[in-house]
Amino acid sequence: MVKNMERDAQQEDKGGGRVVFGVAGVVLAASFLFMRGPAHDTTPILSTPAHLDYDPCCAYPCQNQGVCLTLPANNYTCDCTGTDHYGIHCEIPTWRAWLKKVLKPDPETVHNLITSNSLLWGIINRIPFIHKQIITYVYISRGDMVDSPPTFESDHSYITLNAYFNESYYGRALPPVPTHCPTPFGIKGPKEYPDVDMLIKKVFMRREFIPEPHDTNVLFQYYAQHFTHQFFRTDYKKGPQLTKGSGGVDVSNIYGLTEQDRQALRSRVDGKLRTQVINGEEFPPYLKDVPGITMDYPPHVPIPEEAKFALGHPFYALLPGLFAYATIWVREHNRVCDELQRLHPGWDDERLYQTARLIIIGEVIKITIEDYVQHLSQYNLRLTFEPELTHGTHFQYHNRIHAEFNHLYHWHPLIPDTLQINGTDYAIMDMAYSTAPVFKHGLDNFIHSMVNSRAGALTTRNHAHVLYPVLKKVIENSRQLRFQGVNAYRKRFEMKPFTSFQELTGDTELAGVLEEMYGDIDAVEYYIGLLAERPGPSITPLTMVNMGGPWSVKGLMANPICSPKYWKPSTFGGEEGFNIIKTASLEKLFCLNMRTGCKDISFTVPAGTS
Amino acid sequence: MVKNMERDAQQEDKGGGRVVFGVAGVVLAASFLFMRGPAHDTTPILSTPAHLDYDPCCAYPCQNQGVCLTLPANNYTCDCTGTDHYGIHCEIPTWRAWLKKVLKPDPETVHNLITSNSLLWGIINRIPFIHKQIITYVYISRGDMVDSPPTFESDHSYITLNAYFNESYYGRALPPVPTHCPTPFGIKGPKEYPDVDMLIKKVFMRREFIPEPHDTNVLFQYYAQHFTHQFFRTDYKKGPQLTKGSGGVDVSNIYGLTEQDRQALRSRVDGKLRTQVINGEEFPPYLKDVPGITMDYPPHVPIPEEAKFALGHPFYALLPGLFAYATIWVREHNRVCDELQRLHPGWDDERLYQTARLIIIGEVIKITIEDYVQHLSQYNLRLTFEPELTHGTHFQYHNRIHAEFNHLYHWHPLIPDTLQINGTDYAIMDMAYSTAPVFKHGLDNFIHSMVNSRAGALTTRNHAHVLYPVLKKVIENSRQLRFQGVNAYRKRFEMKPFTSFQELTGDTELAGVLEEMYGDIDAVEYYIGLLAERPGPSITPLTMVNMGGPWSVKGLMANPICSPKYWKPSTFGGEEGFNIIKTASLEKLFCLNMRTGCKDISFTVPAGTS
Repeated sequence: MVKNMERDAQQEDKGGGRVVFGVAGVVLAASFLFMRGPAHDTTPILSTPAHLDYDPCCAYPCQNQGVCLTLPANNYTCDCTGTDHYGIHCEIPTWRAWLKKVLKPDPETVHNLITSNSLLWGIINRIPFIHKQIITYVYISRGDMVDSPPTFESDHSYITLNAYFNESYYGRALPPVPTHCPTPFGIKGPKEYPDVDMLIKKVFMRREFIPEPHDTNVLFQYYAQHFTHQFFRTDYKKGPQLTKGSGGVDVSNIYGLTEQDRQALRSRVDGKLRTQVINGEEFPPYLKDVPGITMDYPPHVPIPEEAKFALGHPFYALLPGLFAYATIWVREHNRVCDELQRLHPGWDDERLYQTARLIIIGEVIKITIEDYVQHLSQYNLRLTFEPELTHGTHFQYHNRIHAEFNHLYHWHPLIPDTLQINGTDYAIMDMAYSTAPVFKHGLDNFIHSMVNSRAGALTTRNHAHVLYPVLKKVIENSRQLRFQGVNAYRKRFEMKPFTSFQELTGDTELAGVLEEMYGDIDAVEYYIGLLAERPGPSITPLTMVNMGGPWSVKGLMANPICSPKYWKPSTFGGEEGFNIIKTASLEKLFCLNMRTGCKDISFTVPAGTS
Repeated sequence: MVKNMERDAQQEDKGGGRVVFGVAGVVLAASFLFMRGPAHDTTPILSTPAHLDYDPCCAYPCQNQGVCLTLPANNYTCDCTGTDHYGIHCEIPTWRAWLKKVLKPDPETVHNLITSNSLLWGIINRIPFIHKQIITYVYISRGDMVDSPPTFESDHSYITLNAYFNESYYGRALPPVPTHCPTPFGIKGPKEYPDVDMLIKKVFMRREFIPEPHDTNVLFQYYAQHFTHQFFRTDYKKGPQLTKGSGGVDVSNIYGLTEQDRQALRSRVDGKLRTQVINGEEFPPYLKDVPGITMDYPPHVPIPEEAKFALGHPFYALLPGLFAYATIWVREHNRVCDELQRLHPGWDDERLYQTARLIIIGEVIKITIEDYVQHLSQYNLRLTFEPELTHGTHFQYHNRIHAEFNHLYHWHPLIPDTLQINGTDYAIMDMAYSTAPVFKHGLDNFIHSMVNSRAGALTTRNHAHVLYPVLKKVIENSRQLRFQGVNAYRKRFEMKPFTSFQELTGDTELAGVLEEMYGDIDAVEYYIGLLAERPGPSITPLTMVNMGGPWSVKGLMANPICSPKYWKPSTFGGEEGFNIIKTASLEKLFCLNMRTGCKDISFTVPAGTS
């Protein structure tokens, strides 16, 4: 019954879309819009057949983000408040919503438009008035897709005060599927999840390395990992629904998460972080030299004390690429301190440190938007960091990381099986908990090797074999967290649900494998669907762009430094400090902090790389 | 020099005010406004006389909330970004700011207008269109005065990331005066604070009980105390700049602050809180019966186990009035659970508990605005709780409690020396850590005695003697926190600074006492100035209204339940649950939870009380 209704709604929609409007028609419709008040939020009470012995809300009958509320005797009601829809299932759009639906092109068309037409965008990018309008629209429309304040967490399928006041929770864009529902997806699909090992073997394991088709390199892969771990800090000991993080870009990956860690990593001189000189270059201090810092080095593996470092994030013990980024950011902090001290010779250590940290957080956001997301999206629209564009709007300067964002960001297919440095091949496991590749070849050579090495394509059948346990844990956690299916998330983020496995994958063989496992397209798991989607013009498939985009924009632009009271020169030590942020770039970050040349620093391999 | 400049600015303002505008003039001025772009944020560099051997920012030279930044060689600059002013000291208004200054009546005039003219307000209160416009203006304009996200904490005199990311800090509306400044107020006033004991004796100690002139009763006093302690949770062990609280109205005073406390206080049946029956009435459980809960009973005083209760807040051990409110709210929670269970017989304990808690937080906000703040302000404008009025505006649904709000709320003069119950007089110390007055006379009689007893006037020379140590600690803490003077806060909250001690106090003798101690009106301490101000039409003097108002509105309306995604029927179990909030009142709260009659329940003593 519910399925029929969806189909009806779509047909209706298509019918509306077929009507050809002239400008006059649009104006006429718009005038209706203003005459008509907001639709009354009806909350009718519906009866479902008496033989249903389960919660009728398990069928997710409410459309357009209406909230289903179970009532006695297998009844339910849809709360359509704020959805711009009404009717029993919030299926009837108000004039405003209807007009928006008719006029707004679908997300795939928009995405194709932005990733092609480079000539057109070349012009638009150079007309500040129009460009600013578009960027403002991007900030606000993406931000609006993230509930702020947060509404859900993983322990309740309904709104509670915990979602807001208990900040140990990751937020949720959609609440978990109640455990009392007939299937893990509500009423659709198999009663049990497909076997995780079979799933991994058939869908995820790398047959042969598939390189990323947009020339993405390993420097990009490590940027993603280094950047995102500041806010993906799952508290695995307590459960995958919980985080130790503070909810956003807090540069805790550079400075430490707790005040105790931050104090331990400071030199207490001129605002600078502790460093040491190795082979004539500045590096983070050894772990043994920084009491109070704990790093995730495995306890039973003999690692010499001169190979263990004290970094802002305990996880960065894992890989030399993370150590390289950690080193560059520590050098950048200390460089900014020198700049600030030149400008303010009277400032004490504390003020230099605090102000440098404010500048660094600005640099991180600037580089993430203008270099990293720019590459990630493959947009021809030039993305810019202009916090003032959100000022005075309803944009909320507060963020909560969502569990689904964390899962979405498991981009392990980016990791190639080996990294070649100065002619030596290092397998992933060779590099685990080792900084030898950095010190044997020198940091600059290591950085160049990251630049010159291709990352893997973000798709199915491209997970390196050693990452099997990581992938298995992600899928198991998503099941424990009772994530809704990928199609539910498509709807939540204003995309049309996939109608077939073929449409999802664009690959007949893979479609067959998935259909055999899930049976119903509405029962495809979240992470599986995200990765199984046919490739698009961006580094990630399209659903990931349309979900990750809102979370990224919100996380970057809701930072306190973007708010009106922070975003001014005096916050950053004056115009000069403010300009360090405004002119920051990936290239500058490396060029100012490498000893030898910084040629070709970017997120793609140099032209001509095989 | 700075003082002269202020005087100049004021004269200029008056001059502008004298120009008589016709409607055409306003339109003309407005058209200029739109022609003129936003003022360029000039950041000129100024030199102060070379003989100054201190930080020139200690003189607070920047006007209109411009930010002073110290530069080398005793120079400084004012950052005027976002102030709508420009010029060396941000002293020149933009057209918009100038027009606003000219058109907007001063806060005292507005306040007198709202607290008189009852006939006019009686009409306005009944015209929904106009009334809603005014309430929206109140929400937004008050909310705008509170920096959100928060900017300052008490350990730095400049913006840091700590103010936002370290939620252990109370926020600050104004940063602390740097310790390197010549005086505790910057450059004004004495080099040392006046002796605290002398100050208390001369200015604060009660000579004889001054009753509150608006018939305020002890039920109001205890409401203030019970309500505010949910968010004033100073972490005294670590320092007065820190809080254990979560930043706002979280009903942690009813349910407990930590998840562990909340779980301990639950019965685990039908969503209800633990209770016990004493003399045929429902009360909170004994402390001995609730493992895991700690209460602030003094360790070395012999209190029988049957006089110790487990309440949501450890502090509520202190006084029987707090115990009475705690009991009423526990009963109300359990009553709401019964209502919800009637509506949703299939719901489990968890959902009943969580949804009842959401309804209770709504009731708390509704009653606080419509009964408590309504009485406190003595406004003839009817204050209403209508969260939808903030939707779609730039209002930020996030709050941080400010240290200054905590200090402002030290309303101990409200406390009378004795409370008479059924003919027996109880002195304050008789009631400390005792629930005997409740159980000897019965809860209902105790409540009626709170209703029938007058509270004290919120003014100088009206602190009960036993509260000497509390008051002394407040003043000492404000000094440790380096609060700026009361005049700095007047400016921060868009009031004109007091120009003389006489103007502040309206009392020649008190003016003399204060002038002798402080010398300079700009050096009067924050809390001292707030209480020493001449009485006005509200329960508190005017500066307190104009500062407490913004913090209150922000704290109440920035609650997550007020945000668009929460404020809908389904959040509260459907229309019936939503209506419990929408029809909540102080009277209903007591009437539904007292055993005998609830006659005369209100925040004033009954008419005719001596």
